[in-house]
Order: sequence, then structure tokens, then C-alpha cells
Amino acid sequence: MAVPGAFIRPYKPSPACLPPPKLTCRGRRQCCIKASSGAGEGLSEEYGEIVKSEKRDGRKSDFWLEKPSTPLLDTINFPVHMKNLSTKDLEQLAAELRAEIVHTVAKTGGHLSSSLGVVELTVALHHVFNTPDDKIIWDVGHQAYGHKILTGRRSRMYTIRKTSGLAGFPKRDESNYDAFGAGHSSTSISAGLGMAVARDLLGKDNSVVSVIGDGSMTAGQAYEAMNNAGFLDSNLIIVLNDNKQVSLPTATLDGPARPVGALSTALSKLQASPKFRQLREAAKSISKQIGSQAHEVVAKVDEYTKGMLTTSVSTLFEELGLYYIGPVDGHNVEDLVTIFEKVKAMPALGPVLIHIITEKGKGYPPAEAAADRMHGVVKFDPATGKQIKAKSSTLSYTQYFAESLIREAEADSRIVAIHAAMGGGTGLNYFQKRFPGRCFDVGIAEQHAVTFAAGLATEGLKPFCAIYSSFLQRGYDQVVHDVDLQKLPVRFAMDRAGLVGADGPTHCGSFDVTYMACLPNMVVMAPSDEAELMHMVATAALIDDRPCCFRFPRGNGVGAILPRDNKGTPLEIGKGRILVEGYRVAILGYGTIIQQCLGAIEMLKSYDVYATLADARFCKPLDTNLIRSLAKEHEILITVEEGSIGGFGSHVTHFLSLNGILDGPLKVRSMVLPDRYIDHGAPQDQMEEAGLSSKHICGTVLSLIGRPIEALKLQ
Amino acid sequence: MAVPGAFIRPYKPSPACLPPPKLTCRGRRQCCIKASSGAGEGLSEEYGEIVKSEKRDGRKSDFWLEKPSTPLLDTINFPVHMKNLSTKDLEQLAAELRAEIVHTVAKTGGHLSSSLGVVELTVALHHVFNTPDDKIIWDVGHQAYGHKILTGRRSRMYTIRKTSGLAGFPKRDESNYDAFGAGHSSTSISAGLGMAVARDLLGKDNSVVSVIGDGSMTAGQAYEAMNNAGFLDSNLIIVLNDNKQVSLPTATLDGPARPVGALSTALSKLQASPKFRQLREAAKSISKQIGSQAHEVVAKVDEYTKGMLTTSVSTLFEELGLYYIGPVDGHNVEDLVTIFEKVKAMPALGPVLIHIITEKGKGYPPAEAAADRMHGVVKFDPATGKQIKAKSSTLSYTQYFAESLIREAEADSRIVAIHAAMGGGTGLNYFQKRFPGRCFDVGIAEQHAVTFAAGLATEGLKPFCAIYSSFLQRGYDQVVHDVDLQKLPVRFAMDRAGLVGADGPTHCGSFDVTYMACLPNMVVMAPSDEAELMHMVATAALIDDRPCCFRFPRGNGVGAILPRDNKGTPLEIGKGRILVEGYRVAILGYGTIIQQCLGAIEMLKSYDVYATLADARFCKPLDTNLIRSLAKEHEILITVEEGSIGGFGSHVTHFLSLNGILDGPLKVRSMVLPDRYIDHGAPQDQMEEAGLSSKHICGTVLSLIGRPIEALKLQ
Repeated sequence: MAVPGAFIRPYKPSPACLPPPKLTCRGRRQCCIKASSGAGEGLSEEYGEIVKSEKRDGRKSDFWLEKPSTPLLDTINFPVHMKNLSTKDLEQLAAELRAEIVHTVAKTGGHLSSSLGVVELTVALHHVFNTPDDKIIWDVGHQAYGHKILTGRRSRMYTIRKTSGLAGFPKRDESNYDAFGAGHSSTSISAGLGMAVARDLLGKDNSVVSVIGDGSMTAGQAYEAMNNAGFLDSNLIIVLNDNKQVSLPTATLDGPARPVGALSTALSKLQASPKFRQLREAAKSISKQIGSQAHEVVAKVDEYTKGMLTTSVSTLFEELGLYYIGPVDGHNVEDLVTIFEKVKAMPALGPVLIHIITEKGKGYPPAEAAADRMHGVVKFDPATGKQIKAKSSTLSYTQYFAESLIREAEADSRIVAIHAAMGGGTGLNYFQKRFPGRCFDVGIAEQHAVTFAAGLATEGLKPFCAIYSSFLQRGYDQVVHDVDLQKLPVRFAMDRAGLVGADGPTHCGSFDVTYMACLPNMVVMAPSDEAELMHMVATAALIDDRPCCFRFPRGNGVGAILPRDNKGTPLEIGKGRILVEGYRVAILGYGTIIQQCLGAIEMLKSYDVYATLADARFCKPLDTNLIRSLAKEHEILITVEEGSIGGFGSHVTHFLSLNGILDGPLKVRSMVLPDRYIDHGAPQDQMEEAGLSSKHICGTVLSLIGRPIEALKLQ
Repeated sequence: MAVPGAFIRPYKPSPACLPPPKLTCRGRRQCCIKASSGAGEGLSEEYGEIVKSEKRDGRKSDFWLEKPSTPLLDTINFPVHMKNLSTKDLEQLAAELRAEIVHTVAKTGGHLSSSLGVVELTVALHHVFNTPDDKIIWDVGHQAYGHKILTGRRSRMYTIRKTSGLAGFPKRDESNYDAFGAGHSSTSISAGLGMAVARDLLGKDNSVVSVIGDGSMTAGQAYEAMNNAGFLDSNLIIVLNDNKQVSLPTATLDGPARPVGALSTALSKLQASPKFRQLREAAKSISKQIGSQAHEVVAKVDEYTKGMLTTSVSTLFEELGLYYIGPVDGHNVEDLVTIFEKVKAMPALGPVLIHIITEKGKGYPPAEAAADRMHGVVKFDPATGKQIKAKSSTLSYTQYFAESLIREAEADSRIVAIHAAMGGGTGLNYFQKRFPGRCFDVGIAEQHAVTFAAGLATEGLKPFCAIYSSFLQRGYDQVVHDVDLQKLPVRFAMDRAGLVGADGPTHCGSFDVTYMACLPNMVVMAPSDEAELMHMVATAALIDDRPCCFRFPRGNGVGAILPRDNKGTPLEIGKGRILVEGYRVAILGYGTIIQQCLGAIEMLKSYDVYATLADARFCKPLDTNLIRSLAKEHEILITVEEGSIGGFGSHVTHFLSLNGILDGPLKVRSMVLPDRYIDHGAPQDQMEEAGLSSKHICGTVLSLIGRPIEALKLQ
């Protein structure tokens, strides 16, 4: 999510111009113009096809309006075409790739600056490693646009994030160069370690490279994977792409966010003092292994080890058993290639972590200057970076949520807010600005976010934990174990519920109703519009004896009349409402899908069908009176929700069948563990207590066929 | 789970006897006999009531057969009664507490050795800190028996883990001394940080202490929490209870397991070389803050800093922003009290990690000698430690699983197995012994376990990931994102599904059917008995184009006839079976609850009701032919499952209603996101594609009332 009103840092123009292009020709039909690499100070204004820096007088270049000239890139369809390129060629290729990405994303929208920050890395990796036999795993995957362009998908980049087009993330279905799909963060080391171990078991000798950002490193899974990698000691290359961008987007309302988490401090220390033994040690190790060829890397090492201390320095990564190399300038293609080649050549080094330093948005001045680095963008003007946003008379649901939460927090000092590195995405940047001491960005750490909120709740605070529906999956055990089973009043604001459009299936919030409503103590709500959302925020603030959650979608509100001062009125828990009175047919919607139901009601009128429409508001507890009366007064009852099976519709049907309301020629009953036994944990040897004994099953049958059941003495 | 045939380490008798008891009397009615502390070399044989070491001639003592004499403990009902005790008294109290725990657990069964390892810690914490105002959070919580005894629950220890008795873990409902409930690992730092931040916001000044084991430290959540604690810098005391026991139980079939994970190596390094600056630094810092009182701690520091290096050594914990103190002898009450008192007195130290070294099972020779340290025990003879196991003619489901998986792996070298520090609990210790190179214990790291398995699957291996149903909740996002959406053939063996008895609600596997069957690509199975389990293991081995899972309960098999050589025969996917042919009434069971259904069928006969019984075998894909025919040929259909709402019954009812089979006076339809759209991520602005547009809702209504719908042009 873009952050309105974000602070724009002053642009620092390129201090130096690079020499004019030299034409070089090579074997394999590669005839290219030399251009600047991204390793220097942005891209040079000598090259019309590459973005020209904003001039000192403020006049903008307009070169980006045309397709950039990319003579070298034009010869590269697959990584195999990059093998014979010189360092200079690779630098040129990186520059062209950067231009191509800006040009493409300007037309499509998408994730821009992550991909711009890794063009040199992408080029160096594909030059050194032999994909798809060697595996490259891009963590999160929004930095993989360059990778897609170099692996046979350049011509389809204009379809990215569109229906039937290229995915916005690596996707195994799409290309065998996409070794592992992503979308959520911090999975790459685990996946890479699996591939490395499989390689060893199968007697293969390919390389496996996991590319992970410093933000992703804050998630527990990355730590679990490093700990296991250090133990298993398989050959695995981890590239830590450190761009000092822990949270996404990378800005608060007041400008660039300082990275959260102590880890960033540790990484900064590594950066600030390039006094490490690692490269020299690496060189020694390489010397042993590859003998006389080692001199090159030793020379390279010296660059990184000037002023090296003689005592040993232990890093977090070394504690976890990884061989640390770095920090390395991630925009210096030559250094990257040298190090990758040497690491690749080492036969038995175990897990290596190569710490590279990059700049997000590198080489594209508008991205470098933007507070959020233009992390995720809609279509934009490449000359200025100005995004072409569709005008809307309403704000996003996210903003309505934030606004009403601020109102509640103004009235109740116990309200606090927690998010997992998504201050922009969840709208909590607004809350943070209003209540800086009451808003907690815990990093990409949904597990910790949930239990941390539970801890806050134990002391009487009123935590709102705002996490995307699909990301809350990562804190599910904590929702069950720390919140629900302890009945602690944590409020979950589940944004991006239901379908999310361009981000694709990894970001769809399909399962939250199902996985939350099965929990014994959770109040589960969904608003039908933005005004209802505000009422549910107020309701959640009031529910203080158990946990609750409410889901809302990506996108803008429908223009509902908002409550006064944006402060909602608490709803009665477990009460739905009738929106349209009709007959014969009842539609019972849950959540913003009510808007589609309203459309259907209108359509049906043209068929002379006047249906009832009810807004359930609550999936748990169900409004059983409403459902009973809808069932009694109509012939047809349709439940509608934007979520998977097992959710709202299942709860309604379960209620109807258990209460005999569905009984026709067939009577159906579903016997499951009742909430109270899940909550209290009935002993396994007393299934009778849990209502699932033979007696209970027998008794259910007998009562359905009208036979006396007293003899069974059911509890 | 106990490990049969486990290696027993030779017993090392106590080298020294302590002096005879001295009677000391104090104010507050505390009149006690001095006894040995546990800090020395086990407990002395001078004290009849405390376990006597096995004598050199092999004769066992029989003191434990009687209730131990606990004169000092008898005066302590709540921690407030411990405040005036001297160090010697506290040592005596610890010894008595140890004896009491052995005595109690011998009668009830439960978690023994974790609690024995922390008696000195428990006593020191409750002496120094003022619970319940100060908060102690016990990670996992199976070490909290001593805590329960000292906080008003001694008389109820005989009810532990029984229905309506004390919980086996801390539980907020049970006592306000239980600051946070547990059962699953690695939540304590998150919860403690929440409490610390809440304290600061509310202007209070209590202490918060999280006690976490080195095993729990391997989980990502602990890392996420430390990273955030280092950043937020609230006062929080973390006690790292390092007993070198990363996996539970702590032994393979061949004896004690070496700890997995690189972290243990780092911790060992810390232990091996007590050459740290921390205590001296701490002393300096304390000196600044508390001035003249610092001399005591400086003296104490000197003990820990002998041979201290002059250069700085950075530990993993310091990298994460914690103030490291240690290592400290966790069985030395005096040292613990000194350090806790000083740390408590420091007004603004930020997060502190006190690294203590303990021995699991300390002071009870049979536990010290056992390969699994008697981690979890049934009732036992306190004199010998010999557990009184109920005889059974069948093995546990866990063992049948392991056995059949070994058979499959013998036939297919691509089968590999993964568990998360539960080699004993999941039966994979047997697999490990048979195929040491193909079994992976990743530590307490379910997230990593799942994605690691996904990585293995990408390369053509056939991973079986064996995780308890309730623990798999912690890898749920990885199941969705890395396995299901990528359709990777990872097999999930979900042990401890359904109710689990004594371990209580945190360990109940209530939700797995619901949270797995909503995923678009997952094959979801459950066996009705141990023979079916073996067939499902064979089926899972064969399913190689998508993920699958099968759940099975805690406890023993029912005596089913096993397949030859314990090698199952693959089942047809999505096919159930009729077990009993009857009429009018059909019972459709899913999983081992079928055994209760069989009982019900028998009971019903005595009422002249001859019901059909079907075994669904699959929740996804459903056997729709079977369900149709059951519905067609019976008047009553009852589904039964040992799980929450939203699972098997919901899938059956959903199918029945969508296909009009439930239609009576009322017709019900539940409209949800179809699997194929969840899987492919339909764009949000094209709800029509996802089958949830106004048109679709309208069309559903029209078709139900028999009106033409062509005009709508539905896809």
C-alpha cells in the first residue's frame, strides 16, 4: 500500500558521468553498447534510453516515455546466453535490465524497487550458476522481475499480475527456473535446505542459492532454517540481501521508518565496520581446496578486509553454524561474480551466508527518493515516478479501519495496536502517528505479534492485532494456544480477506472464517461495508472477556454513510439484521459479499423475484433466531461468503441440520467435538464426556426415529 | 512417549556425603531440618526421606516408598512464606521440593524430570520475586510442578492431569500465580514482553521473568521475540534454562540424542568456556546503579569470570540486543538468588538473559540415569524409577505408523521422514534407527519442518512430515503457502488427532480436519483402525502429484488384523467403504471414531434398529457416490468425527445441500469460494470468475425456483 503524504527525501544527483559507450562485439551474436552499471551513483545521463537524473534546475528528463534501448538484453533469452559475458558486459546488462524493469512496471504496476535493488545480483547469479539445474530461491519473490526477464519471460512481462498473465512472484507452474514459489516471506532457507539435502541424498552436485532480505531475516522461520542448516552442514548458499528495509512499505507517515528489531542493529554493526576475518579465512579455505587459483580471491579479499582486526568476531550467523562472508557491495557485479564463482567451486564448505549490501530502488532516482522506495506501485510516469492513481470517492477499508480505531483509542487509553512489519498495509501508520507509544511494529513476526498481544491483554490492555488474513496463518497456533484457549481479549483485524486480485493465491484471504470460527471462544465477525466495519471496531473494543476477529477486504469502501466522527456504535454480539424484506427466497450474506447480494436482489426483481436479504454480521456466535426465522418463512436459503468451505455456510448448515430444520426425506446430523470439550480438553478415555461415545451416537439415532432413550442415561 | 529398549547410562554414585542435619528455627513458624541441596552431587543418603543413591553393591534403597518428610516445605503454602528464608533454608526447601515432586509424580504419572531440573530455580525465583505481582512465565510449562506446589496447590497435586484436577501445565484459570498458560513451546518471551510493555504503559514497576529451555530456543518464535525485546528495550528477565535437551524425549533408540541445531553448539561453547565479560560488565553497571552494595555481586562475578579474556566476545543473544549474564550453575541456589536480586534491583537494564545450566532429572538417580531422563512418565516405583505400564495386547498407533512407514521406505528409497524434535513422540526414532540418513529432526521448528519437506519434495523425494495435530498449527501457513498452493507431494502424518487425555486442551488435535480440508489441493484421510493406518501410509507414499495428510489418535490400536509384513495396500483415493449393511439409518464415520460407531451399531440392535455403518476414509475428496447412495437408501444420515465444526460433517452437508439431496420444505445452498479459484487466485475485481458475483447468486436462486437463467450468461 502506498503511503499518502509520505516524506520525499531530497534527490542527490549523480556526481559523476561515465565515459561514452564503446561498441563491443562478441561471439554469440552479442553486440552491445557499453552503459553504466548500477554499481556507481545511479545511471548516467549520457544514455538517453536510461533514466536521466533530475537536473539541478528541477527539469525532468522525459526519456522514460520511450522504450529503452537494450541491445545486450535483446540477445539474452535465457541464462545460457549470459555465460560468456565479460564483467563489463554484465554491468551493461544490469543497466539495461534496470531500464527494462522501470519501463515495464511503469505500464503494469507491481513491485518495483525490490527488483531494481537486485539487478546486479540477478545478473551475477545467472552468470555464475547454471539454472535451472542450480536452484535460485527468491525469498518473498517480489524482487524476481529481473529473474523473470532473464529466464524466457521478457515478452510476457506486460501481463504480470493480470488474469492468466505472469504471476507477480516466482511460481513453479510458470517456469522451471522458478525453483520455489513464494509470496509470504522467510521460506527460502528452509526450501533451499530441503533442496540441498535432496541433492546430497540423490548424489547430485548442483548448487542451491537462497536469496533473502534483511526484513525476511526477522521472521522465526529463517532462524529455524539457519539453525538446522548449520547443523546439517549441507552445501547451501544464502545471500543475505541487506537493504535496511525491515518493514514494508518502508516508511511511516513521517518518512522512512527506521528498521525495527535488534537484528538490524547487528547488521548495521557489520556494515559499519568491514573489519572481518571471514573473507581472509574463506581465502585460506579456498586456497586449500583449489590451490593455485586462490590468488584472485585473495586479492578480492583484501579489499574487504582492510583494517581487519586480529581477534575473532563472532556474528549471529556464525553462532548458527553458517560460514559468513561479507559485507559485499551488492551493486558491484565484479565482486559478486568473483565471490559466487569461488564459493561455487568449493566442494564442501557447508552452509555459507554471503552478506551483500544493496539499495532498494537503486538506480531509479524517483524510487531512491521516495520514502517507501516505490515498493509497490500502480502504473506510473517513468520520467517522474508519479503514480497514476485511479480517483475514488471513497477510501480503502484499511483506512476506515485505522480511522475508527484511532477514534476508539482516543476514548480508551487501554487500546494498543500491533502489526507485523505492515504499518502501511494495515493502516496502522495512521495510528502510529497519532499514538506513537501505543503502536508496535514487531517485524515480520506474526507468531510473536499474536502472543505479544496476548501478553498485553493479560495486563488489562486492549490489543488490536492487525494482520492480513493470509499472513495470520503464520500465527495460527498462537491464536489457538495463547489467545483462544486462554480466552484472552485480543482483537484480530484481518485485512485483505477474500480475493485480493493481482497479488494472487498466496495473498488471498480464503481460509480465515474457517480457521477462526472453529475455535471455541472466538467471536467472528465481518462487516458488509465500511460503516459496519467502524461499528465492528467499536464492538471489538468493547468485547473484553474473550477474543474476537473481524475481516475486511482489499479495496475501497462502497460509499456507506459513516457514523458521526467515524466512531462506531457497538453491535449486539451475535445479532444479524435484515436488509431487504422479501419472500420465498432468503439470501444470507456474510461480509462485504453482501454488496454482490444486493446486486443479485436487484437482478432478481427483474424476474419478479423479491428475495429477502439478511446480513449475518456474525459467524460466531450465529444469530440463530434470525436463521430460524429465515428458514421458517422462506423456501430457499442461500448463504454467501467470500471464503473457503468450512466457514460461515458450514456453521449455518450445521445449526439447521442439528435443529431439524433441514429435515425432509433425509435427516442429517453432523456429530463433532463440541466447543466446550475442545476448550476444556476432555480426557481421551472418556469419549462419553465429549459427547461422542457409542451411547451418544446410538442416542442420536434413537431420538431421530422417535424411540425412548432414557435407558441410555446420556449425560 | 517412553522409548522402549532405551540405553541406560551406568549410574554414577554420589561421591560425597553431606554433614548430618542441623535443626534450625526461625521466626514465622519455620522449623526445619537441614538437608542437602540439590546443588551438590545428588542427594545424601543421610536423609531417609530423600532418595538414597543406588548402593555400590546394587541394592536399591526403599525410602521412596514412604511419604518423604518435608518439614520446611510443610510451612510454605504460598511464596510469601519463603521470603525470610536463609540460603541454607532455601537449599533445604529445594531438596524437600524435589522429594515431594518424585513422591507425587510416582503416584500420578506426568512430567517428571523437567520439574526436577528446576527446583533450585523455582525456589530462587519465588524467594526473590513477588509473585503474583511479579510475573513468572514458564515456557512449555511441564517444568512447573514445583511452582504449583509452592503456590497453594500442593494438596491438589494428586489430581494433576486428571479430569477436573490440576492441569499438567500452567493455566491462568487455575491460579493467579500462573501468569500465562502453556503447553506448546517457545511462547514465553513473547508473552513476557507483552506483559513488560503493558507494565510500562500502565506505569507499574513489577518484574517479568520468562523461563525458557534451550530446546524452546530453537523455535522461531523465541527468536522473533528476542529480536523485538532487544528493540523495545523494556525491562524483561529471560532465564535460559540450558539442559542440553533440545529434542523430546531426549533419546533415540540408541541412547541419549545429541542436541540438534547449530544453536546447541553455540550454547556448548558458552558453557565450555566460562570466560565472559558479562558478569564483570554487569557488576560495573550495577555498581553505577546501586553503589556500595555492589561488592557482593562483584565477589560473585569473580567466580564466573576466572580466566576471563580481555577481548570482547559477542554472543548470539547480544547480537539480538539482550544483556547476557552467564553461564550460571542452575543448581546453586545461592548464586541464583544473588543474581536475581541484583538484576531485579537494576532500574533500567532492558532485556536481560540469564543463562543457567541445569541437569534434567537432577537429584533423582533413576531419572539422571535414564536415556530419556524420565521426561514423561506413567506411575512408577520411586525406589527404582521403574514405570508401571499397563499391559496391552496392541501397540500404539504411533508405532504402527512408524512400522508401516519403514516398510514403505524399504521398498522406495525416495521416502524420507521429518519431525520437529519429537523422534520418540512420532515414532520416527524407529525410522531413524533403520534409515539414519533419511530421517531429519529439525528441532522445535514446525514451520521449517514443513517448508524443508516441501524443498525435499521439489527434487523428487517423498517426504513424510510427522507432527502432532495441534503442533502442526504452528506450520499452518507453510502447509498452505509452500505445500498446498504449490501442489507439492508432502505427506503429513498427524499424530495425537482428536482428544488426547491428560495433556489437556493445548494438546488436543481438534482442528486439523477443518484446517486441512479447506485447502484446495490436499488429500485428507483418516484411518478407522491400525490396519487402515498402514494402508493410508501406503496410499500416501503413492500420492505423488499433490499433498496429502492422515490423522490418527493417541493411544493403542484396537487389535485389527494387520497387513502382511505390516505393509499396507494403497487405497483408491476418495473411496470409502460400507462396514455394516443396515437400513433406515446410516452412520458415516471418519477416523477412529468408527470404533465408537461400531459400538453404537451394536447397541442399536438391542433396540431392533439395524443401522448401516460406513467408513468414509477420505474427507477430501469425498466419496460422493457413497454419500449419495447412503442418502438415497436411508432416512437418517449421521456423520461422526472427533474434531471441530467445519470438518468432515461440513463437507458432507455442503455436498448434500449443493446437490439438492437435503431439499425438503427448505432448500439450502452455501456459496463459497470454489477450490479452483482459491488455488489460482482470481482477480478481486472479477468476482464473476470466482463464481460469487451478483449474477451467480441470482442464477442460483433462479435455478432453484425453476426459472430460465440463460439470460444471465453465467460462466
